[in-house]
Formats: sequence, structure tokens, C-alpha cells
Amino acid sequence: MTQHPSDSALGSGNTGTADDSTDDGPLTVVMPDGYQAIRHVTETLCINLDPEDCLAQSMADTSPAKWHMAHTTWFFETFVLQPHAPNYKCFHPQFSFLFNSYYNGAGERHARPQRGLLTRPSLRTVLEYRAYVNDHMMELLRNDSCDRAADEVCRVTEIGLHHEQQHQELILTDIKHLFSKNPLLPAYRAPLRTRNDPIGSTEGLDWITIPEGVHRIGQGDPSFSFDNERPAHRVFIEPCQLGDRLVSNREFRDFIADGGYDRSDLWLDQGWLAVQREEWRAPLYWRGGANDYSEFTLSGERDLEDNEPVSHVSFLEADAYARWADARLPTEAEWEVACKGRIVEGNFAESGRFHPEAAAIRPSRATTGSTDQQSPSGVDSRLNQTGSGEPRQLFGDLWEWTRSSYDPYPGYRPDAGTLGEYNGKFMCNQFVLRGGSCASAQAHLRASYRNFFHAPDRWQFTGIRMTKESA
Amino acid sequence: MTQHPSDSALGSGNTGTADDSTDDGPLTVVMPDGYQAIRHVTETLCINLDPEDCLAQSMADTSPAKWHMAHTTWFFETFVLQPHAPNYKCFHPQFSFLFNSYYNGAGERHARPQRGLLTRPSLRTVLEYRAYVNDHMMELLRNDSCDRAADEVCRVTEIGLHHEQQHQELILTDIKHLFSKNPLLPAYRAPLRTRNDPIGSTEGLDWITIPEGVHRIGQGDPSFSFDNERPAHRVFIEPCQLGDRLVSNREFRDFIADGGYDRSDLWLDQGWLAVQREEWRAPLYWRGGANDYSEFTLSGERDLEDNEPVSHVSFLEADAYARWADARLPTEAEWEVACKGRIVEGNFAESGRFHPEAAAIRPSRATTGSTDQQSPSGVDSRLNQTGSGEPRQLFGDLWEWTRSSYDPYPGYRPDAGTLGEYNGKFMCNQFVLRGGSCASAQAHLRASYRNFFHAPDRWQFTGIRMTKESA
Amino acid sequence: MTQHPSDSALGSGNTGTADDSTDDGPLTVVMPDGYQAIRHVTETLCINLDPEDCLAQSMADTSPAKWHMAHTTWFFETFVLQPHAPNYKCFHPQFSFLFNSYYNGAGERHARPQRGLLTRPSLRTVLEYRAYVNDHMMELLRNDSCDRAADEVCRVTEIGLHHEQQHQELILTDIKHLFSKNPLLPAYRAPLRTRNDPIGSTEGLDWITIPEGVHRIGQGDPSFSFDNERPAHRVFIEPCQLGDRLVSNREFRDFIADGGYDRSDLWLDQGWLAVQREEWRAPLYWRGGANDYSEFTLSGERDLEDNEPVSHVSFLEADAYARWADARLPTEAEWEVACKGRIVEGNFAESGRFHPEAAAIRPSRATTGSTDQQSPSGVDSRLNQTGSGEPRQLFGDLWEWTRSSYDPYPGYRPDAGTLGEYNGKFMCNQFVLRGGSCASAQAHLRASYRNFFHAPDRWQFTGIRMTKESA
Amino acid sequence: MTQHPSDSALGSGNTGTADDSTDDGPLTVVMPDGYQAIRHVTETLCINLDPEDCLAQSMADTSPAKWHMAHTTWFFETFVLQPHAPNYKCFHPQFSFLFNSYYNGAGERHARPQRGLLTRPSLRTVLEYRAYVNDHMMELLRNDSCDRAADEVCRVTEIGLHHEQQHQELILTDIKHLFSKNPLLPAYRAPLRTRNDPIGSTEGLDWITIPEGVHRIGQGDPSFSFDNERPAHRVFIEPCQLGDRLVSNREFRDFIADGGYDRSDLWLDQGWLAVQREEWRAPLYWRGGANDYSEFTLSGERDLEDNEPVSHVSFLEADAYARWADARLPTEAEWEVACKGRIVEGNFAESGRFHPEAAAIRPSRATTGSTDQQSPSGVDSRLNQTGSGEPRQLFGDLWEWTRSSYDPYPGYRPDAGTLGEYNGKFMCNQFVLRGGSCASAQAHLRASYRNFFHAPDRWQFTGIRMTKESA
Repeated sequence: MTQHPSDSALGSGNTGTADDSTDDGPLTVVMPDGYQAIRHVTETLCINLDPEDCLAQSMADTSPAKWHMAHTTWFFETFVLQPHAPNYKCFHPQFSFLFNSYYNGAGERHARPQRGLLTRPSLRTVLEYRAYVNDHMMELLRNDSCDRAADEVCRVTEIGLHHEQQHQELILTDIKHLFSKNPLLPAYRAPLRTRNDPIGSTEGLDWITIPEGVHRIGQGDPSFSFDNERPAHRVFIEPCQLGDRLVSNREFRDFIADGGYDRSDLWLDQGWLAVQREEWRAPLYWRGGANDYSEFTLSGERDLEDNEPVSHVSFLEADAYARWADARLPTEAEWEVACKGRIVEGNFAESGRFHPEAAAIRPSRATTGSTDQQSPSGVDSRLNQTGSGEPRQLFGDLWEWTRSSYDPYPGYRPDAGTLGEYNGKFMCNQFVLRGGSCASAQAHLRASYRNFFHAPDRWQFTGIRMTKESA
Repeated sequence: MTQHPSDSALGSGNTGTADDSTDDGPLTVVMPDGYQAIRHVTETLCINLDPEDCLAQSMADTSPAKWHMAHTTWFFETFVLQPHAPNYKCFHPQFSFLFNSYYNGAGERHARPQRGLLTRPSLRTVLEYRAYVNDHMMELLRNDSCDRAADEVCRVTEIGLHHEQQHQELILTDIKHLFSKNPLLPAYRAPLRTRNDPIGSTEGLDWITIPEGVHRIGQGDPSFSFDNERPAHRVFIEPCQLGDRLVSNREFRDFIADGGYDRSDLWLDQGWLAVQREEWRAPLYWRGGANDYSEFTLSGERDLEDNEPVSHVSFLEADAYARWADARLPTEAEWEVACKGRIVEGNFAESGRFHPEAAAIRPSRATTGSTDQQSPSGVDSRLNQTGSGEPRQLFGDLWEWTRSSYDPYPGYRPDAGTLGEYNGKFMCNQFVLRGGSCASAQAHLRASYRNFFHAPDRWQFTGIRMTKESA
Repeated sequence: MTQHPSDSALGSGNTGTADDSTDDGPLTVVMPDGYQAIRHVTETLCINLDPEDCLAQSMADTSPAKWHMAHTTWFFETFVLQPHAPNYKCFHPQFSFLFNSYYNGAGERHARPQRGLLTRPSLRTVLEYRAYVNDHMMELLRNDSCDRAADEVCRVTEIGLHHEQQHQELILTDIKHLFSKNPLLPAYRAPLRTRNDPIGSTEGLDWITIPEGVHRIGQGDPSFSFDNERPAHRVFIEPCQLGDRLVSNREFRDFIADGGYDRSDLWLDQGWLAVQREEWRAPLYWRGGANDYSEFTLSGERDLEDNEPVSHVSFLEADAYARWADARLPTEAEWEVACKGRIVEGNFAESGRFHPEAAAIRPSRATTGSTDQQSPSGVDSRLNQTGSGEPRQLFGDLWEWTRSSYDPYPGYRPDAGTLGEYNGKFMCNQFVLRGGSCASAQAHLRASYRNFFHAPDRWQFTGIRMTKESA
Repeated sequence: MTQHPSDSALGSGNTGTADDSTDDGPLTVVMPDGYQAIRHVTETLCINLDPEDCLAQSMADTSPAKWHMAHTTWFFETFVLQPHAPNYKCFHPQFSFLFNSYYNGAGERHARPQRGLLTRPSLRTVLEYRAYVNDHMMELLRNDSCDRAADEVCRVTEIGLHHEQQHQELILTDIKHLFSKNPLLPAYRAPLRTRNDPIGSTEGLDWITIPEGVHRIGQGDPSFSFDNERPAHRVFIEPCQLGDRLVSNREFRDFIADGGYDRSDLWLDQGWLAVQREEWRAPLYWRGGANDYSEFTLSGERDLEDNEPVSHVSFLEADAYARWADARLPTEAEWEVACKGRIVEGNFAESGRFHPEAAAIRPSRATTGSTDQQSPSGVDSRLNQTGSGEPRQLFGDLWEWTRSSYDPYPGYRPDAGTLGEYNGKFMCNQFVLRGGSCASAQAHLRASYRNFFHAPDRWQFTGIRMTKESA
């Protein structure tokens, strides 16, 4: 259903700013080493999982880890090896049916909600499948030179690696969801370290000003991007201000304590219906209530950390929170403009933490020790402040819901062929998220990157950044 | 569910262009005569309906005519008479519960899908209810002068009249849907006259150029508008071209004949799911197939008229059609800019036709007799043409699906109080439509007017205008 | 869905005991007068209903009164006039489609849940349809003599009249359900008289002994019966005892007060699921709680009468109540044996009350003034008593749920042809009810009569008679 | 949902006839050896399954093998060890929540449709759980002597072992269903041997006469039985005849070829709805059509064997088939009477075949070589024959659907306490099956044994035996 874009600067280094793409389109992944490195990450993510853990599917939106491993492999087999590797013989004649996700152009496929029933092929067989395809891919990539056919191999391989990174993130979010459904609440990784720095994000919020005017957004340079980021184009932005960090657990607790889930006036109509239908009383992985919330993490359940950003909220909750705080969510254009000239850095999957962190302390504030920033109520003070500090947590930690429906850019053209089903056909009833999360590969992100999910979705690592009109 | 905005220039004349609103905000409806005139239209629309016709509800999205009559009356009772008419006594203590639509702020309400069960109050009683409220309203409006309280009365009354006009349109669309479900296929009005002019819209399509640049859209003047049209703001538009008329039945038949409903590659994912789930094979009210389609109209069933614009298509079908034709739907900003300086005129409800008409012949074309404009296939010729003629059918005939999700404008603020539930809370998973239809009151429309429905909705008078990037 | 059998002794008198049917099969209805009389009752039942009341359908299980009026007429047109009346011309070519209920053998039909959308034909037209068919039927019946063809006309006409009586009962139960859904709680008839006799049914319960042995049940004589009552056959009954009256509202209140709806151990699995899914806390038409229950009746809402039998309970509630009272429901064979030699008399539709009455005072008890029969707790005393008094309320008042699934009798053969769809095809997942109700025609009932509904159904006039094994 | 009774004669020998139970109630299982033997069978059944195979749940009606293994262990822990083993310490504090099936009396439980999400505890841990509980059970059973407490331990242990045998059968049926959903169609066991004897069951059918009169059914002796088989009681049976073998695949193919799935007149209303809703065109595990059906078995897919009995049909299909063949299904009483004096022998799980076999050739027929029994059409000849041969396949091969709803016997009392939830609460909307199947333990069956499933259920090993009235 929901489908997810991606990118990778792995190999080409990640030192440039987010929009300095003026070269003439070299691969962002160095072949064949980049192929090997990215593919290897997938196995690494599953190394602590039992075969049983890799089989189960906790809802129609998620997929088993084993399926992710096989599907990403199917991608290379179908779109690279079959058309381009001479005499390539498919690993198994039925895997094409079993591991196609949603590409109508690639034929029939196994029903999505029944992925958890595929006890066979076993995990072992899927790992053999991966090795088999990797061997053939490496052979193909090694022999490749720069003739016309080779370009096509590299181009599709690059897409396949970005696709792989997207599924790496999904392995994490889907396992988290699966484990949360198990009353034993198993942990995917070792406990999170206790942070020594109690000072965190709940100091008052600063606001970053976006000046009015015509801005250029979208991906205009020839380096890798998904079709939904193109073409680069101009937008007019009315003046506004973005919060300089994500909304924290403490702030969201204030929202709940103030009756946030009980007041219909704070919610979109779809939101209020969801609150009642799903009986939402808190973010997805919170348990308990009032002053003793616990939170399920990939390290198991633990006490809620007030300073960490609130995560696993739906667009509907993010929107309601912002309305309660007399603010709104940013548009995707506002968000992207705020990233201009900034490096993609933050709390990404590479750290292995797989959990958002409290915003770093603002240097200026820290030195001046402005302790008065934190008012008792939290909210009013936030909104009365203005400033022009540095934005924090733009990349990593949590995907940020924007107020923008996932619509095509002016002049949008999907990629040709079956791969054109990747993004465009989902441009209906979804909302754009920006910035990547603690489960995303750092090399996968860029400022123009558009992720998208449905308004009620909560199982991704999603958070809230507030915005308001300039006074 | 889906909810609908409105406006009325009735009384103030409708002679200005669509955006010449520079006065300082007089009422667009002259009171109390405008009140009486608009309210009277509602009864007129129901004059040929039996009490039984006025009771039935054909699906959860529609409402019985009787309910529309009572609900619009409840609006004045609740928002004008109760707060402002001294000693006003409600007509019936339970009508507030029965006839509230979705205003959480106005208390509990009868379940929407059960509106068709309200055999009591009888139609006769509802008509008495209307008369009773009208009497009190007229008294209040006559006594009103220009003090502060009076302004509030007039302001809310004006909203109520625009609201009434929206429900007048819904009476027509809902009766059409209801009658279409009856195997007897009853007619709401007398047969449509046979047109003497066989020359119609299927001459080749011209394209209207929208120049790139910063444009201003939304309602900025003080005359009436709904909150969702405000504030006026700047947008940047990349250069593009809009079709100069709506897509015709003949053209849509070509789409079907070319396998339009069978090719997944033409559809958004939501669209392809809907095609399969709903077994769509043609627009909502078409029956038969291939070369002998008939169409259900408010005048009963009759042969499909090739030159009339295709109607009762969903956003999903409009989008698929445009993709098939190598075009796209316009954004709402593009559409609004195309209206600049144009008068609101067209085939509206006032004509009593309640059915879209073939586009008028282009003056220039008609005189030059350019019969070669109509290629056999229809489509290719359309798209190869360019031009800068006058757009036709921008207003009236059919609501035009835009490619724009129904999102808030920058700086949007809902109206204060319960009436603020009117528009803003529906800004999720709906698409904007523009221009009004043959079931809309002419005085109700303006260029900035934003209607909105869900992507699969088909029972409104909806049509397709194509757009493409400038070469 | 649920479908309902019937019979009529109208015309032949109702003086015999329920099982003395030894004659050789004369019609139980004298033609043509009986035809006219029974048909006329239907119009009479609708005389106080508005056309709007006759249109609405409150759920898929119910039908509009107008539909009942038309469907019963369709029966005569389809099964009598079309095959047997020379040159008969159908009233309207599409009524066969509109008013077929579930006879696959009689062709396609309008979808059941959409009966409430048939605003056309109007009520007036349906009444004309009735008159038209009646005229032709009367002509046919008058000219009929006793040749072979005539027998077939009379046989099917007789079935049609029993069928009409079943739908007369449904008109009442369906209107009651519809009106109960209207917050205005309209009344179908004038208020129930206040009873002057406060002494009622809550005196202690006596038990009627059924002796063990082989009994004959089912209809064995040639007078009218439905196919599901045939053939008469032998059953062995182990000794048991039936309560001599229906369970009262007061007794059912005790069940509720004792946590009846909160204790899973009292319920069948299907029952406990229904309690949770439907949030049952009391019988269908009760409102309020604890000591101030009100009950919706065909005379509107009024205070609950403790001595009246509890009505509008599902099989699942009846079963749970009996288990709570350390008893069980009777089998249909036990019930039928208890009727041996008894006249069909009781509180039927003919009285126009349309509501069950408290059981009559037992003559013997009344004279001996055994006031000690009524213990404070009600239940224990009931079950410790034994006796062999006269059973009360076997016929009329309320249909009595039995513990018997609706299965075919040994040797059962459905009637030939399309009319064979009447009963047999519903013999799955329904339960048998016996004895008729205050909404049934007295002449329609007999001891062998088998009604049947689904376990969760509550909108019929249904009640509870307890049974226990003999000590 | 559907729940299943059981019994075991293991240890006491299985040499008696099915109803010679006149002893005074010794255990039918010799402890502790019987405990160990029966428990061991469960592990054996799973020996060829991967941990992944043991996790997945293919629909809400089925359960994972791992869950079956844990749930049966939970039974002993909850009902034997906790109340009776001094100082017993539960293996894991949350297993009581995870592995309770439906006993409300035993507390809350994990949602049934989410059993497939329990990747933890791992299969290994569940096997340790089994070993832990077995150790404690063996210790308890060894120390037990015949005092009062000991009787309770043995009584409940015996129930637990019958319960275990029921779940052994479910492991097989649930794995079969799971594997059938996998496009790879994996095999649970080695291929079925090819039978050398082509002569099979499609010789003409003989009929076994059941004489009319009062018969005694149900379990009256003190050896083990489930509460739903008690008390023994008398029934009257009208004379009838039972088919002497199960209906074969060939015969069922004739039904299909004759339009069996296309003719509404052959079906119960529920059946016809199911045919349309589920798009039934053949028994559950058939694939292909007309003359090339294949069938999925626990040995994988193979060609359909005409002489084997048709299996995996619902009650609704069995009923339709019988109606087509101008016969009916037997009542459970008729079936049980036909078993009088017969030994429980047949094709049971002990053989490891796990698939029904063609009926053995009738000795008498075989010698007389009555080849004329088999008419071309199959059906007419079958029904015109009468005879009084020996019934075949009464036990084993396939559970036989009866025409009897699963109702309580007269005088039925559920077992006391939580174990009373075992059977009685499911006595609503299910049908009785008799005789056991190729997946049942032979020692588990007896003539009075009542199994029960819902009318549309098809995933059990179910078949058809025809019955007709005596001429």
C-alpha cells in the first residue's frame, strides 16, 4: 500500500550540502563494492532474528523480514539479471509470483495479507536465493563497462539499492510492530544506554524564519533521485517560521493531559473518526497513563523519556497536536527550503540505536544558560518566542509529517516501464513526510526526498515539527 | 461526510467579473428579500416529488430531500434565531437532534445513515417547520438595523443562505442517485428537449495558455466567501495549457473502447482497486455498452449524447482518462488563474435543465468552418493542437476535478465557533473541484470557490478538463 | 432471510381442538369470501400509516409495509392468476422483479436491503395493484367449480392467504422496529388501556408434566398445513415439565439485576459474542435501567409492566435466562405434546392490542388464595414447585423459543415447484418458535405450526417458557 | 470457534464393541504410561515441520502447530498441576494468557486470530515447556493412589489426553490448510503409495436398513465420554436406510458435471449464498476442472482418485449433493444406531496415511461379481437398489456430516467448573459429525462420539453418507 522512496550517496561520500548537485550525474554508488555493502546490511539487520521472527506478518501494511529479504532480491533478478545477464537462470520458477510486491507490469503476485503464510521457502532458502543473485549481480557488475547496455544495468542497479535501503527501514519498523503485538514484548536489540545528560529538548522552542518569495524545490541535478522528486520547480512561499526541533514526549503528554484525545474541535474529521474507531489515547507504543507511561522500543519496553521527541504518531495526531498548540504542520516546500545548504546528518540507522534522541542542546542557549526558556505550561512560552537559531533534527530521528498531500510536482513524469509504478500511482490520499528517521540509512536521504504514508499510519518512525505564520 | 462550500451574489447583481471585489464588504444578499427568494427555491425544487420520494436515502453519502429541507431550516434556528431572536421558541424540542448534520459543537445528532428512517416528522410537518422559521427570520431581518448585533445576524444569515444553496444542489444530486436505484427509472423533470444543433463539442480541442509566474489566488476582498477560500495568497505557476472545454462523452467512449477500464497502468493505485472492487466499466449513470450506451438523467433514461461533456466520473476516472490522453488534470491554482477577469456565466440550475450541455461552438472556428479539427481518433488531434482561444464551460455544466488535494491555504484560519466546523475539518483525503455545475445556483459561484469530494465519489455532477505542460 | 410459516382456519371455524383433524381435507378458508376478508385485513393494518411510514426499511431483515402489500399481491398474480386466469394481463411488467422476495424459481429480484428505496410505485399505485388483483382473483374464485384445475387454484389461493397472514404479522413487527428507530418514538395505535387487575403472572410458576413415551407430532390430517409440519411422525420424549406460563418482565429484571448480561458462564458462545458485539443490556425495546425501565410498544413508550411476559428477547437471551433459572427451553416436540387436545385461543392480533398480556390468574390458585406462591426472590420458589395445572399462554401473546434447531422432520418433502422454496431451504442455523403471538391471526395458528428465526433475532414478538427434567 | 470432543480407549484395549460398556468406570487410559504415549504422539506429528511451519496461522479457524503444542500443555498445567501438584511453579507467568483457548473461567487470553504472531516463545521453548510439564505430570501420576484427590487428578488427566488427541487431529488439518495456501504446495509427508487394486468404491451402493422403533443412544456406561454424549436416552426412529459406504469422488464429479454448483434449487439458502460468496466450484482441495481434477493432500498435490471418498466438503455441499441424489443426510441417531455392535476400526491416524481410502470391496459382491450394479448415470441405479449388507467406512476415513443440528440431549448437564465450557456452549448453529477420520486417533473414537462444525466449514476431513426413507 504505502510505498517509500529512497536514495543513496554511499560511495560518493556524503560531504556535500544537501543541494549542491551540480555534477553531471555520476552514480552515487560505486559498483560493485557499493552493491555488496548495501546488500550486506540487510542480512546484518536480521542477524538476531529467529526464522520464526522473520516469518510473521503483524498486519496487512507490514511484511515479514523474510519477505523483505526475498523481495529486494527479486527486484535485481527481475529488473537486472533477467533482461541483462546472458543465460541467467532464475533461482526458482515461482519466486516471481511469491515476491512481487505491487508491480502490475511484472505479472501476478501473492496476496499481500498472506505473506505471513509462506513458511516455505524457508529462511535458509531465501538466504541462498540472496547469495545466488548476489553472485550473478557481482559478475555482471564486474564485467560491465560504459557502453549503452551497461548504463542501463547500473541505472537499475542503483534504483535497486535505494529500494533495498527502503526495505531495510521497513524490516525495522515491521519487526517493531510485530514484537509490540506479542505480550512477551521481546527486544530486537540490547537495551538503550542511559543518557548521562538530563538536559534535553524541552527547553523552549525557537523558530526558524523562512522568508517569503519564489524558491526552487525538487531535484534538478543529474545525481540520483526518485521520479517523484522531479522536476525541480519554483514555488512561492508566504513568510513563516518552523520550530527548531521536534515536539517532545513531555509536550505531547501536556496535550493528552489537556484532553487532546477528547476534544473533537482539535481534530480533522478523519482524525476524530479514527480516535473513536481505534480508541486512540496515546501514541502507538505508549502504555500506561498519566504520569507513568512506558514506551515500547526496539530494545523492549522502558519508561517514557520526556526529552525524546514524540514518535509513532499519525498525521491525524500530528495535525491535532499542532492545532492544540496554535500552530500547524509545515508544507513540504517550507521544510525543504529550511534545509537549503545543510548537510544530511543526524541520528540514522548507522548508529544502531534505532530510536530517536532528544534534540541536542543549542550551543548559544547552552552557554547563556537561559533556563527561563522552559515555562511550566510548556506551550505558551514556546509560541511566544521568536528567534532565528539553527534548526535541529531536520534529518534523522523521525520522519516529519508535512501538511502536504502527496501530489505530483508540475511536469511530473513517472519513470518509463514497470519501474514507473514505483511512486506515481500512490499519489492519492497520502501525506508527505520529510527528513528520514533513526531507522533510515544516512546515505539514503537528501533534502528533496519525499516519503509518504496514509493519514492514520503510525507504525513508522514519525514525529512532529511545528510551523506558524510569521507575525 | 464530504461537505460543500458555497456563496451567493444574489441581489447584489452578478455583473462583475469574478475577481473585482474591491468594495468594503456589503452583503451579497439583500435582506430580507434575498432570504425569502433563496429559501423559496428549495420548496420549488421539491414540488414534483411525492412525500415518499422525499424520505428515502439511497446511500450513506446522500440524504433525503426532506432532511435537506429540515436541516437547512435547523441552521437558521440554531445559529440565528436561538442566539439572536428574543424569546424565540423552538419549533420542536427534538429537531435539533434530528437535523444537525455534523456539527460536534451543536451537540449530539441522529446517525447519518439512518436519515431515511425518519418517516416522522412528515413532509407536511417539515414544511410547517420551514414556514415557522421563515416567519421568525423575516421578522428578525425586517427589524434589523445596522448596529453591532445586526451585523452578526446578517453575517450568519448570509452563510445560511449559501448553505441553503449547497443543499439545493444536493437535493438534485441525491434524488438523481435515488431514482437511478429504482428499476422503474423515474424522471424528476420533463424530458430534455432535443437539440437542433448537431454541431457540438467534439470538434478538436484548443488549449488556453497559462503564463508562468507568481499569481494571486483565493478570496481577498471583503465580499462573501467561505473560510477555505481565504486568505488570498501568492502561488508560483509553471507554464501550462488548459483545454478550452470539458471532455465529451464521445471522447470518453474512445477511452473505454481503448481498454481504459482494463489497463492498470492508466490508474492510480486507489483507482485500480476501485475499478475492481466496484466493477466500474463506465461512468456512474451509463448503461448498456459499446455503441448503444444510454444514460440516466433527471429526465429519465435516454440515449447517450456524444457531444455532451462526460459526467458523473470520479476523480480516479478523470485522472485515468487524462493519463490515457497524455495529459493531466489542472491544479486548482491553474484553474483559478484561467478564470481571471471572466464573468460567472454558464449552464446553471436556474435554467431548470439540470443536465450539462455540449460546449458552445467557438465563434472563430464556427465561422471558419474548420471541420478538419475532428480527427477520427479524437485524441491525437486534440493533443497536437495548440491555441489561445477562449475557454468554454469554466463555470456551470459540471464541477471540474482538479489534481489538487483539498489542503488549507497558507495562513488559513477556520471561522470562529461551531461554524468553523464547516470546511476545515474535511481537509484530508479529498480533492478540490471548481466551477459549479448545472445543479448549482449561478449566484452561488465565484472563481475562488472550492468544492471538495473524495476520489471515488461519482454521484455529483462532475467532469473533466485536461491540462498539459507547455511545450 | 428468516421466513415464516402460517395457516388459517378462518371460515371453517376454530372450534376443534388443535389436533382433531380427521376429515378429508376441505379448504379451511371458504372462497371467495375468505379471500376477501383476509386480504382486507392487510389494508386495515395500514390505515393509520402515512405513505412515508409505509416506505422505510429499518434493517435488512425487515421490509416496508408497502412492500409487504405489494409482495403478497404479487404472490396471487404469479402463482394463481398468471397460470390459471385466461388472458390475465399483468398490472405492471416490472412488478415481478420488484416484489419477488426470495423465490429463485420465479426469476430475478430487487435486492432485499434496497426495498426502502422504492419510492415508486407510490403507495397509491400499490393499493390500485391490490384492487386490480383482487378483482381478478374474485372473478376467478367465483367461477371456480370443483374440477381438477379448480382444486389447484384453491390450493394455491389458500397458501397465498396463509402467506398474507404471515406478512400481516410482519407489517406489525417491522413497523414497530422502524418506529423504535425514530427518536420521536411514534405510536402505531392508541395507548394501551390501563389494566384494572393488578394481580398478574408473577405468582409462583406451576409445572405441567409431560409423560415419557412415544408421541405423535406434526400434521397428519388433510387440512391445511405447511410442508415443514409434515409428515406426522413419532418421537420419544423423556419425562419433563413445562412452566405453566411465560417468563414475566419482573423475572427477567431479576436476571438482569443478578448480572445476567455480565456472566459469560450463562451464555452460549454465540450469545456471549452477541452480548459484547451488540452491547445487549436488556430486551430489545427496553430503555432506562434498574428500577425505571420503560418499554417501547406499538402504542409508544410507556413504563415497563412487571406482570407482562418479557418480550423481544433473542433465542440467545432466552437460553441464558433459562440456564440462570436452572431450567432450559422446551423442545418443539415437548411443546407440541403439551398442546394436545387444547383449543387455539389467546391474545391474538384480532384483539387489536398488539402487545402481550399478563398471564390470566389460575382459577384454582385464585380461589385458594395461595399467596405463598410468590417468594421474594422469585426464582427459587418457582423451581421447587411442582404441579399439574393448566398451561397458560400456549397460544398467542408471544412466540416461544424452543431449544430445537429448525431441522426437517423424518420423511420431509418440500412442496413441488417454486412454492417448495417456501420453508425447506431455510432449515439451517435457525430455531423453532411455537404458539403465535399478539401480532398473529388466531385463525392462522395450530399446534403443529413451526415458526423459525435466527438465534440473535429480537424484533419479533418472542418470549420464554421454561422447562426442566422431571425429578 | 468450532470445538471438538474426544475420547480414548488407549490402554484398555479397543476390542469391545462400541456400546458394550457395562463395567464400573475404570480409566480408559492406563497411567502414567498412557499419558506418556499420547503426549509423545504430538511431538511425533511435528517432527517433519520446520519452526516456521509451526508458527503460521492460515485463518482464524485454524491454529499454529506450536500453539497446539503449547495449549495442550497449558491444559495440564492449569487444570491438573496448579490445583493438585504441591508447590508446582508455572513454567512461565504469561503462558496462561498466551495459551488459553476459550475458557472464560480461566481468565483473559490472547486474541485467537493473532496466534500466528507469537514468534516468541520459540518452538524450542515450547518443547521445553512440554518436557517441564510432562516431568511434573509423570511425577504426580506415579505418586497417585486411589484416594479421593487422586481420582480427580486422573479424571482431569484423562480429559486432557482426549483433548490432546483432538488437537493432534487439528495439527494435521491446520497444516494441510496452511500448506494449501502456499503456492509451492509443500508436502507434509511422503507420497501416498499407488494402490494396486483398481477396483474400488464406485460399484453400486447398497443400503443398510434401520428398523423403526425406540432406540437408545448416547453414552450410558461409566467409561470415559464427553458430557455432550450424555445422558443415554431413548429416541424413536422412523424406518430408513443408510448408504453402505461414503460418496466417492467419481460420484461427486457427476454432481458437478450435472450443474450441482449452478442450480439454486439443490441448495439450502445458506448454501446458495456460500456458493456465490465463496465462489465454490468443487471441494476445498480440488483444482483444475472437469476431467483433470487434481487434489491437494498431506502428501502434496496429485491426480484425483475417483474411487476415494469425496472429502473436505461442507455440510452445505453434503446436503446439496444428497438432495441432487434424491436422498438426504442421516440424523445422528440413525447413524449411531447403525453402529450398534460394531467394533471401532478403519483408516485412522495411526496408519500415518492421513488420507481417506476407497471403500473396501464388499465380500459378497466381490464373489458374486455383480458388475451390473454400476449404471452409467450412477445415481438412479444407486437409489433403486436395496439391500442389507454390511456398512463400510463408518469409522475412520472421514467425519460424516449428519442432518442433526448440534443440540443438547434431553437431560444434558455440562461438566462442572471451567471444563464445563468444553462442549455445551457451542450448541448453536453447528452440525454433528460422526465416526472420526483418517486424522483421528482410533483409540479416541466411539459410536456415541459427537463432533461438530459449522455448516460452511470445509477444512476438516469431512465426507458424505447418504440416507433415504424406507420404501
